[in-house]
Amino acid sequence: MIKVTVPASTANIGPGFDSLGLALNLYNTYEFEEIENGIIIEGCIEEYCNENNLVYKSFKTVADKIGRSFNGLKINMETQIPVSRGLGSSSACIVGGVFGANALFNGNLSKDELFKIAVEIEGHPDNIAPAVYGGLTASLVDDDVPYYVHYEISEKILFCALIPDFETSTSEARKLLPQMVSLDDAIYNVSRIAALLKSLEAGDFNMIKMSLKDKLHQAYRRNLIHEYDEVEKICMENNSVVMFISGSGPTLMNIIENSDFTKAINNSIIELKHKWEIKFLNVDKNGVLVEK
Amino acid sequence: MIKVTVPASTANIGPGFDSLGLALNLYNTYEFEEIENGIIIEGCIEEYCNENNLVYKSFKTVADKIGRSFNGLKINMETQIPVSRGLGSSSACIVGGVFGANALFNGNLSKDELFKIAVEIEGHPDNIAPAVYGGLTASLVDDDVPYYVHYEISEKILFCALIPDFETSTSEARKLLPQMVSLDDAIYNVSRIAALLKSLEAGDFNMIKMSLKDKLHQAYRRNLIHEYDEVEKICMENNSVVMFISGSGPTLMNIIENSDFTKAINNSIIELKHKWEIKFLNVDKNGVLVEK
Repeated sequence: MIKVTVPASTANIGPGFDSLGLALNLYNTYEFEEIENGIIIEGCIEEYCNENNLVYKSFKTVADKIGRSFNGLKINMETQIPVSRGLGSSSACIVGGVFGANALFNGNLSKDELFKIAVEIEGHPDNIAPAVYGGLTASLVDDDVPYYVHYEISEKILFCALIPDFETSTSEARKLLPQMVSLDDAIYNVSRIAALLKSLEAGDFNMIKMSLKDKLHQAYRRNLIHEYDEVEKICMENNSVVMFISGSGPTLMNIIENSDFTKAINNSIIELKHKWEIKFLNVDKNGVLVEK
Repeated sequence: MIKVTVPASTANIGPGFDSLGLALNLYNTYEFEEIENGIIIEGCIEEYCNENNLVYKSFKTVADKIGRSFNGLKINMETQIPVSRGLGSSSACIVGGVFGANALFNGNLSKDELFKIAVEIEGHPDNIAPAVYGGLTASLVDDDVPYYVHYEISEKILFCALIPDFETSTSEARKLLPQMVSLDDAIYNVSRIAALLKSLEAGDFNMIKMSLKDKLHQAYRRNLIHEYDEVEKICMENNSVVMFISGSGPTLMNIIENSDFTKAINNSIIELKHKWEIKFLNVDKNGVLVEK
């Protein structure tokens, strides 16, 4: 039996569209056990308790790669990461399956090799990198090969996620983006991601407020998120340093200086039409954890 | 008498268009002395020995700001930074004048205030920031206010500039740029500047090679630079880690691992039609230096 724990992640983070990712202390755990035959999946809605399950498919991809067939598999999941909310739940499933198979079958694939396989399944590295390595990552794809670098992030920086009761589809969110942008908007993001990375490392809230801005994706996507303006108003009135769309949404993430924020916004948030879960979060520094 | 020493700088640095800048150990020194009347400027071509001289105009701007009038000024310059070659010579003139006036007249403007005045004169901060603060800087303008952050750069990283015998005009180089770019090209630079900053800090040459790439400016501007392809071929054949256009050109800058590079390329470079000066350079860590 193998147990794999994978953190949630928030991607894009304002100017870092399709590059930045940050692991957060909300976890899915997956236990894998070889059985005589069939597939048993526990802890997941009925619809996905079959061979189309993303954890299972990712597990199978690595089992095939290391040349290990199996007659039956039992997967038990305990999931804290909400599905389709922009918090890296699909990346967590993939990383869980990929690392689970390598560990259960004593594969000798390295962490970096498993990272690459996971990116291949997911299609982009921005949530996979923090889920695997923890902390703050900047990733990119060059000639179809994914790369990442790791940045420090100050412990002063705290997070509050507002997770709504509706979903957005990543592919729908992508369709909203323009194919062409102005050179000025491109430079806007290029210069701000450079300032943002240093200000996250230094815990410089003034500079974070000024650099965590974006002109490449959020303006197009905010319309998909009901009550965006209302939530933003509440957060800003209660001293959120900055609010941004987590991944492709709909979760709205705040950088905060003080955990009191979560209490302060509560009365206003519950008056909104949609239900928004308020979740205080910290950075996960470790990434995926495999236990035998 | 006040002596101000200002380093050269290389801006853009691949993906960091209009943001990154790096100070290099090539210096202009400016000595300022109040005289009874008139303007005496030494060490500069005749054409600029008058009140239109950029050092003088920058000096005057700050003198006006601190409310100090003067009847006469003598400026003596010793200049190592070549003019109009993409190595920050105009920023050096501005920083020299601005810091010179504040020091000569005992103005109480802070370094950050003088930085802002210099950016106002120059119009953009990417060469001013390294000239003032030294080292590697990322800068941006938000609501007309310039900001910068400072990044470490590994001492393993060495530079070799190839400075041709022709000029390019920054405004001509800017006209060549498209107004619109693809979102993919914007993301290309966003993700690479993030990886580049960490790899420069770490001195990771493989990652520098992979991340110091650009799709926003160099492809458009290289045509302004005679013999670009020939120079690139020579540099790459002699193990340049990566070559990029310094500022808006025409200087071509190489990141190198070993100073032998400068000797290795010499025989090939002198066979080109244009004269290309080969200059081995290090990072300047201090920025502007004011001595009384």
